[in-house]
This record gives sequence, C-alpha cells and structure tokens, in this order.
Amino acid sequence: MSIHDEMLLLARQTKEAGRVIANLSTAVKDELLKNMAAALEGNADRIISENEKDLSAARDKGLAPAMIDRLVLDEKRIGGMADGLREVAALPDPVGEVTGMWRRPNGIQVGRMRIPLGVIGIIYESRPNVTADAAGLCLKSGNAVVLRGGSEAIFSNSAIGDILQGELERMGLPKAAVQVVRTTDRKAVLELLKLEEEIDLIIPRGGEGLIRFVSENSRIPVIKHYKGVCHTFVDASAEFAMAERICINAKAQRPGVCNSMETLLVHKDIAETFVPQIVDAMRDEGVEIRGCSITREFAPQVKKATEEDWHAEYLELILAVRVVDGLEEAIDHIQRYGSLHTEVIVTRDYGNAQRFLREVNSSVVMVNASSRFSDGNQFGLGAEIGISTTKLHSFGPMGLEDLTTRKFVVLGEGQIRQ
Amino acid sequence: MSIHDEMLLLARQTKEAGRVIANLSTAVKDELLKNMAAALEGNADRIISENEKDLSAARDKGLAPAMIDRLVLDEKRIGGMADGLREVAALPDPVGEVTGMWRRPNGIQVGRMRIPLGVIGIIYESRPNVTADAAGLCLKSGNAVVLRGGSEAIFSNSAIGDILQGELERMGLPKAAVQVVRTTDRKAVLELLKLEEEIDLIIPRGGEGLIRFVSENSRIPVIKHYKGVCHTFVDASAEFAMAERICINAKAQRPGVCNSMETLLVHKDIAETFVPQIVDAMRDEGVEIRGCSITREFAPQVKKATEEDWHAEYLELILAVRVVDGLEEAIDHIQRYGSLHTEVIVTRDYGNAQRFLREVNSSVVMVNASSRFSDGNQFGLGAEIGISTTKLHSFGPMGLEDLTTRKFVVLGEGQIRQ
Repeated sequence: MSIHDEMLLLARQTKEAGRVIANLSTAVKDELLKNMAAALEGNADRIISENEKDLSAARDKGLAPAMIDRLVLDEKRIGGMADGLREVAALPDPVGEVTGMWRRPNGIQVGRMRIPLGVIGIIYESRPNVTADAAGLCLKSGNAVVLRGGSEAIFSNSAIGDILQGELERMGLPKAAVQVVRTTDRKAVLELLKLEEEIDLIIPRGGEGLIRFVSENSRIPVIKHYKGVCHTFVDASAEFAMAERICINAKAQRPGVCNSMETLLVHKDIAETFVPQIVDAMRDEGVEIRGCSITREFAPQVKKATEEDWHAEYLELILAVRVVDGLEEAIDHIQRYGSLHTEVIVTRDYGNAQRFLREVNSSVVMVNASSRFSDGNQFGLGAEIGISTTKLHSFGPMGLEDLTTRKFVVLGEGQIRQ
Repeated sequence: MSIHDEMLLLARQTKEAGRVIANLSTAVKDELLKNMAAALEGNADRIISENEKDLSAARDKGLAPAMIDRLVLDEKRIGGMADGLREVAALPDPVGEVTGMWRRPNGIQVGRMRIPLGVIGIIYESRPNVTADAAGLCLKSGNAVVLRGGSEAIFSNSAIGDILQGELERMGLPKAAVQVVRTTDRKAVLELLKLEEEIDLIIPRGGEGLIRFVSENSRIPVIKHYKGVCHTFVDASAEFAMAERICINAKAQRPGVCNSMETLLVHKDIAETFVPQIVDAMRDEGVEIRGCSITREFAPQVKKATEEDWHAEYLELILAVRVVDGLEEAIDHIQRYGSLHTEVIVTRDYGNAQRFLREVNSSVVMVNASSRFSDGNQFGLGAEIGISTTKLHSFGPMGLEDLTTRKFVVLGEGQIRQ
C-alpha cells in the first residue's frame, strides 16, 4: 500500500471512530481515561523497555543530552502521564453545553450547542508524554485523534498507543479513535496534511521549524504558535518593589519557556532610578542585560542592544532593556517586535492599565502580574493542548473548549418562513 | 511595480489602518457607517453611470441575463446598500465585550475580551452590493478590509470604494481601512492569498469553483461554504399538516438559495400515507420528485432517483425523496450525503427530537421549523457576512461576532509564579 493510501485509510478509520466518540456520555469518557491511566501504570515495564530502544538509538545517533533527557520515560514520568489523564477526566465536559438560547419574534428558539471538532491531528517532536496527554484531551472533548510523533520516539509512542487502544477495545469502543502513525517515513506527515475531508484541525507541537513546515504544507486549518517574545512595561507610576518582583519572576523563574520575559520596557521618567535597580537585581540572578543607549546612560556596564535583540526569543538568562517615552511608545514597540504572546504592564495608573488592556493586541495582556502565569493550567482551563498566537478559532492558551465548535440548534413549533 | 509588490503594499497599508479602526469607539464607527450610507445615496448618479460601464461590457461579452441582473445597480439597490449600512450601525458592537472573568486561587482575575481579527479579505463575484455590505460589517467589528470583486463589476466596485474611502478621509480616518483592489489581473488574488502576515482571514463569496480556488491557494485561514444539501426528516410521529407545511416552505418558497431543502427523508411507518400526500402537494407547487424504490411504490408516477440525486444541490424545483427505516438511518443518510449546512426533523417524539439535535453534526439542526430560517438575519445575528460549513472558528451563519476573536486579560496585584 502506498503511503498516501495508508494515511488515507488510517484517517478514514479515525473519522468513523470519531462519530462514536462524539456521542459518548461524559461518564463513559471519564471511565475510559481512568482505565487508560491505570493501564499505563500497569504496563510501565513494557513502556520503559520500548523507550530503551529509542534511547539507545538516540545515543547511537549522538543526540544532544537535553534531547535525550526529553525522550526518557521512567516510572515517575509514566505516573505523570497517568495523573494527567486522571486530571483531564476530572475536568468538566464541554460537549453538549448550550452557550445561550434566545427567542425570535416568530417564536422559534435559537441556541448554540458545543460539539466536538471531529478528528484532531497532532504533529509533535521528541517528548513521548504528548502521546497520552493529547489523546486524553482529544477524547474528553469528544474527538478522535491522529498522533504523529518524531521518529526518535517511535517505539515509546507505539507502545503508549497500543496500551491506549487496548483500553478502547476493552470497553467496546473503536480503537481507531486513537491512532499513532507507526511509519517513520517523513512523507506520512505531508500526506496527512492533505486530508482536509478527514481531519478537522492540525496542532503542531515543537520547534519553529516544525511549525513552519506544517503550516506551509497543510490544507487543513493549523493552530500555531511560533514563539514568545514577551514584554513587561514598567510605567512611571509603578511601585518599584512590585515591578522588580514581577520582572525577576518573569525573566528568571524559568527562562527556557515561551511565557518568560524577553524585553523590558521602562518609562523614561523613572529610568534614572529604576534602571540601575533592576540591572543590579537581574545581575544577582545571573541575567545578562542588553540595553538601549538611555539604559546604558544609567547602567554603563550594560552591553549595547542591537536591532536583533528586540526581535529575540532568548529562552535563557538574557534580557533586552529599552527606555521608552511612555505608554504610546511601549505599545508601538510591542506591536512592532512582539509575537502576539503575552505582554505585561506594571502601573498604579488606572487609565494606563485600561488603555494597555484594550490596545495591546496580543493573546494575553496583563496588569501587575508575571507573564509566567500565561498558561492554560494557571488560567484554570485545565490541561493545555497548546497555545495559539494566531487569531482564528483560538487565541492564547487552549483548553478543552478550544477542541470544540458550536452548532446552531433551533426549536420550532411548525414555523415557516414568510 | 510588480503585482506582488502592489498587493503587499496595499495589504500593509490596510494592516496599519486596521490598528486605528480597532481602537475606534462605537459612536465613531456608527457615525462613519451612517455617513457612508448618506454618501452612497448622495452619489447615486455617479454609481449608476459607472455601473453602466460594467453593464455594457457584460452585454458585449454576452453574459447570461441572470448574471447581468445581479450586476445592475439602480436607485433602489443603492438605497438597499445604504439601509444595510444603517442596520449594521444599529447593531451592538462586539468589540471590548468581556465574555467572562474568574478569580484564580492566587487572586489574579482572568477574563476574555473580544477584539477585532485585524484585516479581513473578501473575494467575491458579480454582485457589487457586497462591496458596501462587507465593508460595513468589517468596520463595525473593528476590522480593516481588502475587497476583491470580480472583473465584471470593476467600475461599480471602484466607484463604491471611492465613496466609502471619501467618508473615511472626511472623518480623519485612514482611507486604507477599506481597500478595493482595482487591478483585474487574476494574479492579484493569488498574491493576496499569500499575505498571511498582513491578512487574518479570507472569506470567499461566490460559486463552488471560486471557493475551491481560494481554499486551495490560500496560506491565510479561509472560512468557506461549498454548498447546501439540506435534509428534512419526517418522523413516524410527525403531524402531517405541519410536516407538509414545513416541507413545502423548505423546498418551494425560494428554491435557489442554499438553505432550501434538497432531500426529504420519510419514516417507513408513515410512507404509505405521507408519501402520496407530499408528492401531490409538491406537484401543485411545480416540484419534480425523484424517489427511492419505496417512494415509487406509493407514488408510481415519480421518477427514479439515482445515487447522484442524494448528493445533489438542485437549487431549483426538484426534490429527492427517500424512505428510511427510522431515525438511525435518517442520521446515517445525512452524515453520508449532507454538506453540514442545515437539517430538520419534524416529530412529536421528545426523545427523537433530542437525539437528532445532539447527533446530527451539521452547522444548523432544527426541530419542527423550515430550513429556510437558517440565516443570520432570521437568527437575530444581524446582517450576515457569510455562512461556514467548516468547523474551525465559526460554524453556520456568521454575524459580527464571528469577525472577532478573544484575547485573555489578567488583572493582578503583584502576583508572581511560585
């Protein structure tokens, strides 16, 4: 069978299975996820021995230690996957919710009911825990899922897929509802991305290269997240202690993630005092500063920032600092260099807080809080399937609700149109 | 300038203008739309004389009379466009609405605020009234718009565009917020469809050929609507008089539109009585019937339906009729042959009504009402920008709200992440 026919067949089976999953009760879906969690724990030995095959191939290929670390599955990480499934089981089911119903002059009632999207395709790299996490979120929201992990995790992903499918079968449900693509042929991804009749949404999870590749080759809608160039603007009226606390947390608490701060903007009226203070505090945290010329007037030891620094997603202990004329220039800088991820203002001024909230068009806009809160779990959405920095369908951290859509429901009593 | 550079420049100007439109108050937007309405009426002579150029070119090219009729702009149609703008001005402004706000355990408040998408691209055919209608809906929802009509309406569309831009300028607003593409080079569309950094959403309006072309060539998300193969299922418990009234209305009141009925499904338990009754009633309306073999048992004069009839969007006085075993088979038929547009059940059975509402996965699902109600205006959404039969972002008739997205807003008091 050609790779085209193989992927088409697989996706058609998944679509068919999706019709069954869409109509399951919440109780059955929750039982399924809890059974899957127990099965992962019960089969930990098998997962670990399959994972060992991936690890030894990775070592043979000379993969970087950080990459290898991401690949490792041990008892603890398998327990983490199982707990993740139990947490998703405990979340409210978005399917069937009627998000409003109104009566028209002719008496028909019109409402909107939340329904699953159908089939979700997840294209991801290295971390094999995504296999279980994504399957859980898709099933709970009534969707079937096609999972295409990286070739470096093929044994681990296949083992996890087998275990999840075993639980579907044990409950009399179609195992095609969770499909792990088992060919490592790179053409498989290209074929999947053409199947717009079978797959409703593609979510790529991985580096910018993977996301661009998927986005450029997909006929199916893609929800994407290129990078997080997050800004914090310290306004003239900011309380210095709060501003310092928020900036240090946003930069240094976990610099390698997309919601950490990359550029600090400081109002010119407080630059003389605040710049030396924050530069010192950042230095104590081991953060290297790259500043604009005004920043360097007040902190001469700071390295000069170049145009690239304003675009940079460092993901490490480096921070770009720019002094701006005020709110207007801060917003302009964010519009020009930002990536629509998360932006913060620290201020005591009500009007500036409101304007920042209204006018900054990123997916998350905050007043007086660390950008590190920009996360589905922190927002109370439950586990996160991804984060979108494009505006269609979802914008920002995505939870279960973002794996659904709404149809119109109309209740009549024989009305006809005049 | 190359067509690529020309479209890129135009789209960049539109994006820049979009930032201004996004932050306008509702009052200013409403004033703008009312001024535009008055300007269209005040310049009716100019529009009509430009329209005459399109009409004479169309006659020279030998366009079909129906096509020419769609092109015509007279005082009445110009008045209709103006009224359309005034109606949009009277609709509530979706921008800025906070659709929920909740408090997290650490005290941060998290909410979602509705914001414009940015720049909408509309690709449409023949009817020049779309130029004003779409511009009004995009502006009211805080978006800028690039309008690319068909070459057969280029003089009419350009004249309308000039008048709308004149009103933007008169109010000190950037005229690039409403851009009519004035080149008739077909490459212009292909170039526009690549500008994913500048244009946030493409809405094609026209025949299936146009929509497929746009969808296959776009790097920008497309909201599409291929066709409307709408079904009515008359259940065993249906009240015959109501069922007949609904079916006649759904088929014959305006057969040429996408929400008219194309296939009637009849429960086998009532086929012997209901099939002859509805066939007679349809004949009185001039409707040609194509039936399955059971239909033809009870109405022998009926033409035999072929497999193509179940797929057909007739858009004229033809109806396919099939007798089904019951609800299950009706739903299966709809899943297999439907186009995810609008499906109706006529029933007195509560359980069947609920199951139909829940399990049929089309964008509009109705109980005891004519499919002809499937329309943004009829649903109370105000003017309709289009209808989506794909699930991402919007599903079903689209109003102003569907031209927006939601960002997260977070109100803190100095919280940092532990």
